[in-house]
Amino acid sequence: MENEKKEKETKKEMVSELRQDLISGDWVVIATGRAKRPDDFANFRRIQDDKGIEDCLFEDPVASGQEKDVLLYHRSDGEWTLRVFPNKYPFFSGKKLSQILAEGPYFAMPGAGYHEIVVTRDHYRQLAMMDVMEVAEVFDAYQDRYIDLMNKKNINYISIFHNHGKEAGASLAHPHSQIVAIPVISPYVKLELDGAELYHKSNKHCVYCVMAEHESAEKKRVVFENDEFIAFCPFASRSAFEVWVMPKKHNPYFERITDEKKVKLAEVFSKGLNSIYKALNDPPYNFYIHTSPCDGKDYPHYHWHIEILPHTATWAGFELETGIEVSTIQPEAAAEFLRKQL
Amino acid sequence: MENEKKEKETKKEMVSELRQDLISGDWVVIATGRAKRPDDFANFRRIQDDKGIEDCLFEDPVASGQEKDVLLYHRSDGEWTLRVFPNKYPFFSGKKLSQILAEGPYFAMPGAGYHEIVVTRDHYRQLAMMDVMEVAEVFDAYQDRYIDLMNKKNINYISIFHNHGKEAGASLAHPHSQIVAIPVISPYVKLELDGAELYHKSNKHCVYCVMAEHESAEKKRVVFENDEFIAFCPFASRSAFEVWVMPKKHNPYFERITDEKKVKLAEVFSKGLNSIYKALNDPPYNFYIHTSPCDGKDYPHYHWHIEILPHTATWAGFELETGIEVSTIQPEAAAEFLRKQL
Repeated sequence: MENEKKEKETKKEMVSELRQDLISGDWVVIATGRAKRPDDFANFRRIQDDKGIEDCLFEDPVASGQEKDVLLYHRSDGEWTLRVFPNKYPFFSGKKLSQILAEGPYFAMPGAGYHEIVVTRDHYRQLAMMDVMEVAEVFDAYQDRYIDLMNKKNINYISIFHNHGKEAGASLAHPHSQIVAIPVISPYVKLELDGAELYHKSNKHCVYCVMAEHESAEKKRVVFENDEFIAFCPFASRSAFEVWVMPKKHNPYFERITDEKKVKLAEVFSKGLNSIYKALNDPPYNFYIHTSPCDGKDYPHYHWHIEILPHTATWAGFELETGIEVSTIQPEAAAEFLRKQL
Repeated sequence: MENEKKEKETKKEMVSELRQDLISGDWVVIATGRAKRPDDFANFRRIQDDKGIEDCLFEDPVASGQEKDVLLYHRSDGEWTLRVFPNKYPFFSGKKLSQILAEGPYFAMPGAGYHEIVVTRDHYRQLAMMDVMEVAEVFDAYQDRYIDLMNKKNINYISIFHNHGKEAGASLAHPHSQIVAIPVISPYVKLELDGAELYHKSNKHCVYCVMAEHESAEKKRVVFENDEFIAFCPFASRSAFEVWVMPKKHNPYFERITDEKKVKLAEVFSKGLNSIYKALNDPPYNFYIHTSPCDGKDYPHYHWHIEILPHTATWAGFELETGIEVSTIQPEAAAEFLRKQL
């Protein structure tokens, strides 16, 4: 009782709260003294950069001279619904074994790998607007391509991500995701692998399972859940309205998801993304999958998941200097506002 | 000879090059296949958001109701040239000892600390335009405040940074820097401390000293140098036209800089920042100081330095997912273009 009172007083005096990321041990700042009301965030408007359907390179990828499809899904009437083809301007390309190039004390290597584009049919129908089965098809394509690419020579990590809006780095308005298969392991995933390993050593539990269980019991940061997946605003959110989508049962490998679970995933992911779309009035956003590397090793203590990051602010000097992120809404208030949209 | 030819062929075929950060071991991508000409980067224009001198809160901080100055520099005629006062909307504030607040598996603590603003006199004269002695005065103020704050209770790290332009997070156009003194150590500095420690263990040298020496001998990435400091584009640049300013002689602690060296620093820093200002046509930018924590421990293998990051692109899904940054100009070409501005 006395403690509770004390805690409340402390919270009242605080202009901000430091919250620790359970996985990395890093801190984020929830600047409650600068806090805005949830609906104030909807004022961060996107640049309307769509040149329209006539000039769209992805409306008819063959006619616009894109590379040959590596995957093509059709409806029963023959019309395509989703296609995947190599990016004409890849970050990584070529099958050469990566030899190390040295200059003095430094090391470099050629950017060998694959860079593909996943395009859905409708120019004006972004992922946040799609129904569950359409979203499930997108995850199906991610999995198809993942399994093909993971077995290529020299590929140790596969990055799957989606940019929506110019401020989130989307250079074309037509909805598309990207798949980049690379010879090195993503530094951010490496941090999570190390954090999960360390947590398991100390606590004998998967840190992601602990989070999913606590969130599902606690409810206050949950946006939506079914029996297999949970969408929630992380306790140590790095950005306002950040949402994670996580399988409730332990699984380190995204590519091993079953068709049945893919539909369950699509249901929870859709609700999460759609609530952001409505709450923030179609904001720019990125989402990406974090999954185990495909370097032939086992990662029994990792737990694959999706992170959705809406853009509501600019990373400035403090964030760039310290890596400590400043968010201006409490994750609990963000989740409450997102739930209201459902 | 044969090797050289082979290397040239490899470089020609490459659409990108992966370069390893010598300190963290992380990789960056130099996307040479997407490379633009150096002067194409000048097209990334800043939003002109200056509401003018009449409505400026920092033109007369006392009249506009800012907090009381903690530092004030004057000219001989009594006119102020630089002042430092607490931020009215701090990220961190209060002197309370940070008690840990727990919720289930998570930890948090109150954001105790200090958040100050460093303002120079002239509304229209940004740091990139200042002469050497004016810039030296700014570093003098950073040092003054650092030394005062480092001795406060519960302060373990001090972040000093500067945002220029709305896209870089500057909410006011009047030139100002920020000093944030906090109870936790910056995760990015922690990565560098660990990297420097590990490098010293393997190589018996400071990794920053090795870089400064190699750059000064190699010349191709140097923007400007004198006998004490060097400004160069790092081999593994994370953003186009990134510039680091580093003391040539080993020193872990920024706050121990002498007055004489402060002028040498100001000379090299000014040249570096001014070359970016001219080359990119007044772009938005951030710079910050990375120095040892002030938590009472020694950091003999660290080496303080300044990082200048112009904004020429948006961090998109791939960077957010992987932490692997994609830059579209070779650091050697960027440095050459910056040197041309001097």
